[in-house]
Amino acid sequence: MRHLLSIADLSKSEALQILNTAEELARVSDGPMKKLPTLRGRTIVNLFAEDSTRTRISFEAAAKRLSADVINFSAKGSSLSKGESLKDTAQTLQAMGADAVIIRHSASGAAQRLADSQWMTGSVVNAGDGTHEHPSQALLDAFTIRKHLAHGGDDLTGLHIAIVGDVLHSRVARSNVLLLTKLGAQVTLVAPPTLLPVGVESWPVKVSYDFDSVIESVDAVMMLRIQLERMTELFFPNAREYSRYFGLNKDRLKLMKPSAIVMHPGPMNRGLEITADSADSARSVILEQVTNGVSVRMAILYLLLAGSQEIGASE
Amino acid sequence: MRHLLSIADLSKSEALQILNTAEELARVSDGPMKKLPTLRGRTIVNLFAEDSTRTRISFEAAAKRLSADVINFSAKGSSLSKGESLKDTAQTLQAMGADAVIIRHSASGAAQRLADSQWMTGSVVNAGDGTHEHPSQALLDAFTIRKHLAHGGDDLTGLHIAIVGDVLHSRVARSNVLLLTKLGAQVTLVAPPTLLPVGVESWPVKVSYDFDSVIESVDAVMMLRIQLERMTELFFPNAREYSRYFGLNKDRLKLMKPSAIVMHPGPMNRGLEITADSADSARSVILEQVTNGVSVRMAILYLLLAGSQEIGASE
Amino acid sequence: MRHLLSIADLSKSEALQILNTAEELARVSDGPMKKLPTLRGRTIVNLFAEDSTRTRISFEAAAKRLSADVINFSAKGSSLSKGESLKDTAQTLQAMGADAVIIRHSASGAAQRLADSQWMTGSVVNAGDGTHEHPSQALLDAFTIRKHLAHGGDDLTGLHIAIVGDVLHSRVARSNVLLLTKLGAQVTLVAPPTLLPVGVESWPVKVSYDFDSVIESVDAVMMLRIQLERMTELFFPNAREYSRYFGLNKDRLKLMKPSAIVMHPGPMNRGLEITADSADSARSVILEQVTNGVSVRMAILYLLLAGSQEIGASE
Repeated sequence: MRHLLSIADLSKSEALQILNTAEELARVSDGPMKKLPTLRGRTIVNLFAEDSTRTRISFEAAAKRLSADVINFSAKGSSLSKGESLKDTAQTLQAMGADAVIIRHSASGAAQRLADSQWMTGSVVNAGDGTHEHPSQALLDAFTIRKHLAHGGDDLTGLHIAIVGDVLHSRVARSNVLLLTKLGAQVTLVAPPTLLPVGVESWPVKVSYDFDSVIESVDAVMMLRIQLERMTELFFPNAREYSRYFGLNKDRLKLMKPSAIVMHPGPMNRGLEITADSADSARSVILEQVTNGVSVRMAILYLLLAGSQEIGASE
Repeated sequence: MRHLLSIADLSKSEALQILNTAEELARVSDGPMKKLPTLRGRTIVNLFAEDSTRTRISFEAAAKRLSADVINFSAKGSSLSKGESLKDTAQTLQAMGADAVIIRHSASGAAQRLADSQWMTGSVVNAGDGTHEHPSQALLDAFTIRKHLAHGGDDLTGLHIAIVGDVLHSRVARSNVLLLTKLGAQVTLVAPPTLLPVGVESWPVKVSYDFDSVIESVDAVMMLRIQLERMTELFFPNAREYSRYFGLNKDRLKLMKPSAIVMHPGPMNRGLEITADSADSARSVILEQVTNGVSVRMAILYLLLAGSQEIGASE
Repeated sequence: MRHLLSIADLSKSEALQILNTAEELARVSDGPMKKLPTLRGRTIVNLFAEDSTRTRISFEAAAKRLSADVINFSAKGSSLSKGESLKDTAQTLQAMGADAVIIRHSASGAAQRLADSQWMTGSVVNAGDGTHEHPSQALLDAFTIRKHLAHGGDDLTGLHIAIVGDVLHSRVARSNVLLLTKLGAQVTLVAPPTLLPVGVESWPVKVSYDFDSVIESVDAVMMLRIQLERMTELFFPNAREYSRYFGLNKDRLKLMKPSAIVMHPGPMNRGLEITADSADSARSVILEQVTNGVSVRMAILYLLLAGSQEIGASE
């Protein structure tokens, strides 16, 4: 692997390699002395042209735990905001010695455009591009599902996962559909028709408008964040109606299989797409997703930048 | 100690332990090779929901001098500003592997709420919450006073300290009153009645509206910053009147005892609560307060995160 | 050297020492293990009161490659923006243990004022002050020119360099004129009369309003960035006119000597002062300038903070 741009580009074996490496890194870097020397002397730039403290910090923590130097580049007040092209910005960062550029951008395809550039010799990691993909999020979700539900199995064969909410605007949903089905799971999208993309019929998923009819059979429900600014009558009547039909609550929790888990990519709107008691229930693996996010991002950086080296080689 | 939330919660012996540890760390980490390996592999997050470059940088410098990794989280454009609860934000940071969260927040009690959370297993350090407390500032002030005035003594018994200005809105004043009196000092608050809190009669301090009658007898004057945005006739007529009655200037400096010192938590409004020549006079220990701030914060992080280890163990 | 404030203050031998040190550091820190332990335990503060992601990151990368700790201080929301004086801010940073302060400020002379302060014992590096100077940029430009064109020679004797564009508002032009001529080069400024400073007659340069008549004889053209906000009829009629008379394009590239190079300090306005094909042409050394910027800034920090130590001493 040279870049991580999308789940669409990732083979099943590459995806499994990332999950397995993350598992190993989580084991090796556990405990009070969590730092590995693997990427010492490497420079990783967080190029975030869109706010996302959560994802930025997760990548930053992952890079630092591998002893890399991290430089944060936020677009606010930068040459990007003064009209410099993304290509010039990225080339500049690489010319300064960046071994990898982690990019978050509001334009779908931004990471791909960077990687295609003839000048870019370092690695590009897509940390979310428009409504296109968010591959590291899907990988950490798959990692979390596998850890909890795929006892002994390498992939997610036989599991049924519901993705619930604003699929239309969600790069998380898009990457998850691609990855979970690639790993053998069955996926059902649950959303009002207004929040499903045109052409969803051709996706390798089932679609339902009725959460209650789906929830009994799933192994995991993945609740999507509702962007409050999209809460207009165009998409659905109001927050109360939305919660009633598509929110996760105590009543729905009771319908779930005993082993089924509750997931959310965060940040949550407690009381909107998920009630507080659901988020904090024993079924919830939401904070584990965050923890696994660091391990999975360590694995991504490790495989891109130090693929041939030994994991956990002593300092 | 697991958290540092307030001076109110701190016993006298814990406070002295912090001051003594700071003294030792200042000695050990002095010189060109200032870095100690004590917190290598630990991750410390600065969660600043309110601007405070000065306090943030002091904690960052302290953490880095102990070899910890530091991740800065500013609330601007973060999930916090998108409506995520403080609890979810903090839990997320901890799930990413934060060993300590240093929090600055406009709501009084914010640090306490975090620490009370059943999910929070790491350490919480209060770096200022609303008008409530700012414990690390009080500790660095006590450290500075002790160093200059308590020759040989462990605590501040026998010393008299005036805290002058906007006590009403000042968490620095609140924490200092608690700590200085706990350490045996006598404290006099000097302020116009409009800038004293309701119930100040029950505080273990004297109150005066007349700076000149107090200044001759004190060992230290601690000038508080005037928030310019509060400079309305509600609190005091105008800046010139304020300076005249409650500002520190050359004439008042002359009234002070030979050994008495001048303090200010910064940033100063030169010409308002303190004249430039007072701030730069030989009595001023204002920059020493800043230097001591790093040592005291190193001690806080050290005691919270590495309490049982040896100080200055070689790398 | 204790500070780096301006090219005007720098002797020719000091300038050459920086270039030679940068050359050596570039060699030593090349390859996958790019980090040198030289400045371990030192703290460097980026005090940027004006946006400049590019320069800030270059200094940050340079400092980290020498193992220094870097603390970023942006003026937004800081005590500086709350009215604290630059002097108090800088003294505070130094009191926190900063060994060097790298300052970018909109006021000409800001770095000098800091360095003149009786309180400032650490090093001050000017990273751009108003329309005055930007010494590290000129040094990296000279480094790049020497590497490409001064085969074997120590300085730039015999070379002819054109600086083209908005000289009036450009600290880059000012520092380059001083440094390039100090190193023996001949400099021609090419600009419309409205974009030349009053008194340019006394500068040690030639002046031309006709780019085409100059370009055939130069060894390097250094295109200056046009500040779009200055694009008013006061300075020149419109962008198309400007590009036609003072922009670099394919036709002009053809007029250049075979060995001549194209430079730009970045960020570029592609299509305005330079066409995309010129920026990406084989003559362009624009990305090399960026790479060299890190080496030159490493040399500056090295000479200021570790001058007497050995370069590349093993860890």
